[in-house]
Amino acid sequence: LNESLPNLTKRDRFLRACRGQPCDRPPVWFMRQAGRFLPEYREVRAKVDFLTLCKTPDLAAEVTFQPLRRFGFDAAILFSDILVVPEAMGLKLSFGAGEGPRFADPVRTRDDLARLRPIDPGRDLAYVPAAIRAIKAGLPDGEALIGFAGAPFTLACYMVEGEGSASFARVRTMMHADRETYDALMRRLADAVADYLLAQVEAGADAVQLFDTWAGLLDGPTWAARVAPYVRTVLERLDHAGVPRIYFAAGGAHLLPHLATLGMEVAGVDWRSPLTVARELLPPGTAVQGNLDPVLLLGPADTAVARAREILVEGDAAPGHIFNLGHGVLPDTPPATVSAVVEAARGFRSRHWT
Amino acid sequence: LNESLPNLTKRDRFLRACRGQPCDRPPVWFMRQAGRFLPEYREVRAKVDFLTLCKTPDLAAEVTFQPLRRFGFDAAILFSDILVVPEAMGLKLSFGAGEGPRFADPVRTRDDLARLRPIDPGRDLAYVPAAIRAIKAGLPDGEALIGFAGAPFTLACYMVEGEGSASFARVRTMMHADRETYDALMRRLADAVADYLLAQVEAGADAVQLFDTWAGLLDGPTWAARVAPYVRTVLERLDHAGVPRIYFAAGGAHLLPHLATLGMEVAGVDWRSPLTVARELLPPGTAVQGNLDPVLLLGPADTAVARAREILVEGDAAPGHIFNLGHGVLPDTPPATVSAVVEAARGFRSRHWT
Repeated sequence: LNESLPNLTKRDRFLRACRGQPCDRPPVWFMRQAGRFLPEYREVRAKVDFLTLCKTPDLAAEVTFQPLRRFGFDAAILFSDILVVPEAMGLKLSFGAGEGPRFADPVRTRDDLARLRPIDPGRDLAYVPAAIRAIKAGLPDGEALIGFAGAPFTLACYMVEGEGSASFARVRTMMHADRETYDALMRRLADAVADYLLAQVEAGADAVQLFDTWAGLLDGPTWAARVAPYVRTVLERLDHAGVPRIYFAAGGAHLLPHLATLGMEVAGVDWRSPLTVARELLPPGTAVQGNLDPVLLLGPADTAVARAREILVEGDAAPGHIFNLGHGVLPDTPPATVSAVVEAARGFRSRHWT
Repeated sequence: LNESLPNLTKRDRFLRACRGQPCDRPPVWFMRQAGRFLPEYREVRAKVDFLTLCKTPDLAAEVTFQPLRRFGFDAAILFSDILVVPEAMGLKLSFGAGEGPRFADPVRTRDDLARLRPIDPGRDLAYVPAAIRAIKAGLPDGEALIGFAGAPFTLACYMVEGEGSASFARVRTMMHADRETYDALMRRLADAVADYLLAQVEAGADAVQLFDTWAGLLDGPTWAARVAPYVRTVLERLDHAGVPRIYFAAGGAHLLPHLATLGMEVAGVDWRSPLTVARELLPPGTAVQGNLDPVLLLGPADTAVARAREILVEGDAAPGHIFNLGHGVLPDTPPATVSAVVEAARGFRSRHWT
């Protein structure tokens, strides 16, 4: 019977799942799958700083490949950082040792906004399409390649605050206190992010993910009024690019009822929203991506694998599940635990593949 | 017609709302209403450090009174910090300038646990009942007095991590990797917190609030299995104390369906969960407390007042609403904006009071 079914490449599997089509098993990739938890990554980083790594296409490609070789993921994700876009717009970006990102010159007024440069990603972020071409040329086993960008609101969080924050109160205040500057900034970002993702698709990205890491700080109506329009702009400009679009609002359990109008193919779901609940609240046919709690990878492997199996079964209630974590891999994660979980996912058989 | 209705003191109003009984208007208090945003608080703090302030009953009482005098809140909340409990258990607590709290000797193993002292709050935290007696003796206008404690899980977050964290991965790993130590720690904390709150009630607290600031990091089933039993222990030990019990899980939109079994009188609701949704998910008769986004107090006062009015109307759909923020007052909040919002709440008339 199974002989009539296509033999899926990793890329096929990933793209079918994004489109809500049945697969032999869910495709698997992990957010932040390339990074500090891998010794081979730390070896590269011992020689170059983080931003140099992002800006050197061959090195970015090399660290993008590392988790594919080690774990057999179905998809690669471009190694980069969401903040290269504001940097290209003219903000001075630094990463202090052991600290988060910092902009020396945050954007807080209309005048600050005037300092931002319009960007042409092919010129100002040329190292990214170059990295994508290098990755596409060297993928070890026909994996899909996911491009990505920070969503406009999350970029604005860092650009206005100037650094990480628990509340990002500055941009959330600007949204009410200086609506004009906020809207102008978000328009600029939506355009830049759309251009940037289109350049990634043109260079060969098979899908794109918009990371809205801080969207969960907002209540639903505020998100819908002040953030969603700019996400929609980005998604609409990608409409004819022919690649699936993933939108991930971390901490967004309460935003799920508001996501329906966006029209993305895939919703990233963090570990706090059960996939079943997400599917009930999203438009029919939207694929879901997630959602193992990354903290489980720090504990006993059998606990992580047991929870992964539950998620695989829950995800298989309908076609259109991409197995992933509910957030990025944490730096202290043992690679062996990642292996065990990936093996469990790769050994799963979908009941829709018959 | 209104002449037959009782004339409510501030304390009556607060306690009636906690019990889900109709009031002339919702009682009003703000989390972190005493603190750095008030010049009169900064004046006191210029002379003593934060922990000395917590441990000096007359000073703690003085800063507790400051927002009552300025804004006319219906309830006072004890000025203190949730981490005085682990400190009394033997951990060395410090607050670095401009940083968060830090424990020099975090609890990570069974041996670390053995170092913790059993506490008798009347002896080891005697300054807290003393502060409560001083506050009760000096309340400016018949306000209710709310005692409080950190919930066991949130205390464990700091005790195991040793400092603030975005993910509190250490305690969340311990929960899976060393269940025995985790459970033993949580049992110790539940007992200590219950004893501590009972001592506060005995000294005169009219109600108690359990702050579970980091509960929202957990998915619902994990919270229900590993956190709820210890919250329940605390609440049950307060069952016969005769005071309303408020449980506040910040960032807990996704936990609401799981709160039903706790049996508290009042659920704190952050700004991301609409009061209507919270009421649908909580057991009938549970009062709700919240939920203005504290960031709105940093922007134009009319925007904050307009949103407060919406919340007042939404809260008045049923008796049992305590008007509050959805999280603590932020340090840069202008007192005038707090005044404007409190005035709006105090001017509201409930449709259930006829």
